[in-house]
Amino acid sequence: MGITVGVDIGGTRTRVALFREGTLIAREAFPTEGLPEVVAAIRKLLAARGAERPDTIGVGAPAPLDMRRGVILNCPNLPHWSGVRVVEELERAFSCPVYLANDATCAAIGELEYGHRARDFVYITWSTGIGGGIVAGGRVLWGKSGQAGEVGHMVLLPNGPHCRCGKRGCLEALASGTGIARAARERLHRELTAAQVVELARNGDPGALSIVLQACQALGQGIAILWEIFEPEIIVLGGGLTNSWDYLGPYVLEAAARMARSEPRVELTPLGDDVGLYGAEALPRHYPSGLLPT
Amino acid sequence: MGITVGVDIGGTRTRVALFREGTLIAREAFPTEGLPEVVAAIRKLLAARGAERPDTIGVGAPAPLDMRRGVILNCPNLPHWSGVRVVEELERAFSCPVYLANDATCAAIGELEYGHRARDFVYITWSTGIGGGIVAGGRVLWGKSGQAGEVGHMVLLPNGPHCRCGKRGCLEALASGTGIARAARERLHRELTAAQVVELARNGDPGALSIVLQACQALGQGIAILWEIFEPEIIVLGGGLTNSWDYLGPYVLEAAARMARSEPRVELTPLGDDVGLYGAEALPRHYPSGLLPT
Repeated sequence: MGITVGVDIGGTRTRVALFREGTLIAREAFPTEGLPEVVAAIRKLLAARGAERPDTIGVGAPAPLDMRRGVILNCPNLPHWSGVRVVEELERAFSCPVYLANDATCAAIGELEYGHRARDFVYITWSTGIGGGIVAGGRVLWGKSGQAGEVGHMVLLPNGPHCRCGKRGCLEALASGTGIARAARERLHRELTAAQVVELARNGDPGALSIVLQACQALGQGIAILWEIFEPEIIVLGGGLTNSWDYLGPYVLEAAARMARSEPRVELTPLGDDVGLYGAEALPRHYPSGLLPT
Repeated sequence: MGITVGVDIGGTRTRVALFREGTLIAREAFPTEGLPEVVAAIRKLLAARGAERPDTIGVGAPAPLDMRRGVILNCPNLPHWSGVRVVEELERAFSCPVYLANDATCAAIGELEYGHRARDFVYITWSTGIGGGIVAGGRVLWGKSGQAGEVGHMVLLPNGPHCRCGKRGCLEALASGTGIARAARERLHRELTAAQVVELARNGDPGALSIVLQACQALGQGIAILWEIFEPEIIVLGGGLTNSWDYLGPYVLEAAARMARSEPRVELTPLGDDVGLYGAEALPRHYPSGLLPT
């Protein structure tokens, strides 16, 4: 039959899509609730095509998760999903193999199969948090339990702001949407979203500009570090904060160029918000045999 | 016949060894001069075994080099080797395939084949400079031209001391032997080797201790970053400064543990100064097809 399914479970929205031979043929997006809503969405899309069961289902979800058990662990962004046996329950519902991985790793797979298709690149999600996925020599870098690519938790400022991971001065604490909003709360004494801080900066507010510059410099430093370590062809960015790339990009790129020996090539993903959805579809073809359920 | 050759060209010493089926059967080490001395050493070792030509020769040398052309480029540590066509000249001399790569990448290959044999690890040389090589999923990470793994040039302190690469605040500028000696010159106004600074610190000299602590914290931060990015099984260290690991190790490990979400496992290479020599022998079996001479 040749129908495959991709599922991207996000902190706020869930996306589900049907693919036929690598082409997206139907999709659905809705506010994230529980697994029953995901099952219902897949069933509805399949029924509309007169199909019963897909060949494979790939699922991306925010870390942390246990790939070998196919379970979402204690996840701050998805509290009511903690402990959900995603793989087991979807396999029971659809009688096909199901694969689960970190959403940023899925995004990197999406870039590999459907985006720039470079063989050596780093994908970075610049959003509420900062995540990453790495492809080297055309292969996904998984690490010993599938947690590789956590670029948001490299410490850049050892005595810097606290990160939700418990450490201080992580890239995520310095440059993510959460980090920008917290800096606004602490330094400007205002409750603002990261997007609002960026707009204030764009309109010349000095306090907001200082926060935004710090975030961009930290991201540029992180990009430069990845450029030196991987010697990739390209670094690909996605995530909500890249919607303001016209304004933020030059600051990020200036810092990255200053801190790398050759100028990093940085591009936004051509797949936009769907990069993780495309990657989830392709996940089964890249899943490492060492992390299959035992 | 099954004889292979490994050559490790260092800034001060060159090592040459013959292997039979993965076992080192003869070796020679001498002060680094030119390529004719390397050719003579290989000939002498072969003649002593009654052999004429090896199956392969692998050569490790300090970066930068052009792997596709098999040439050492403008190398600060080997000035009279700049432009030497290592691969072409050794192939002519011995009528066998010759492979050239970065010395730290060779060291990582040595660790992979002859050392801890982990499938996911980062190797770091802590010496005059700081270099690195990365193995992920049992495969060497090369990057687009074989320069991946340059962990010494990650910028940790954007306004920190100048690095010989032209940037500021690289790990190498903060923590290498050269960096430690320069800090002693600038802050203690004394001409000391890194080993002497370490000995002074060990004996309680406060100025030397401050320099050594800064270096160890920077190395610990670098290790923590690599731990988050790769999720490796282990991080392996080698190089001259690890001779003082009994004293320096606890400082490095404290910083690394503080800046990573799980405690990095760090070990010294069991191969000591020969890690690069072993890796050079194994290089032909790991050389990436995309970087073969065109």
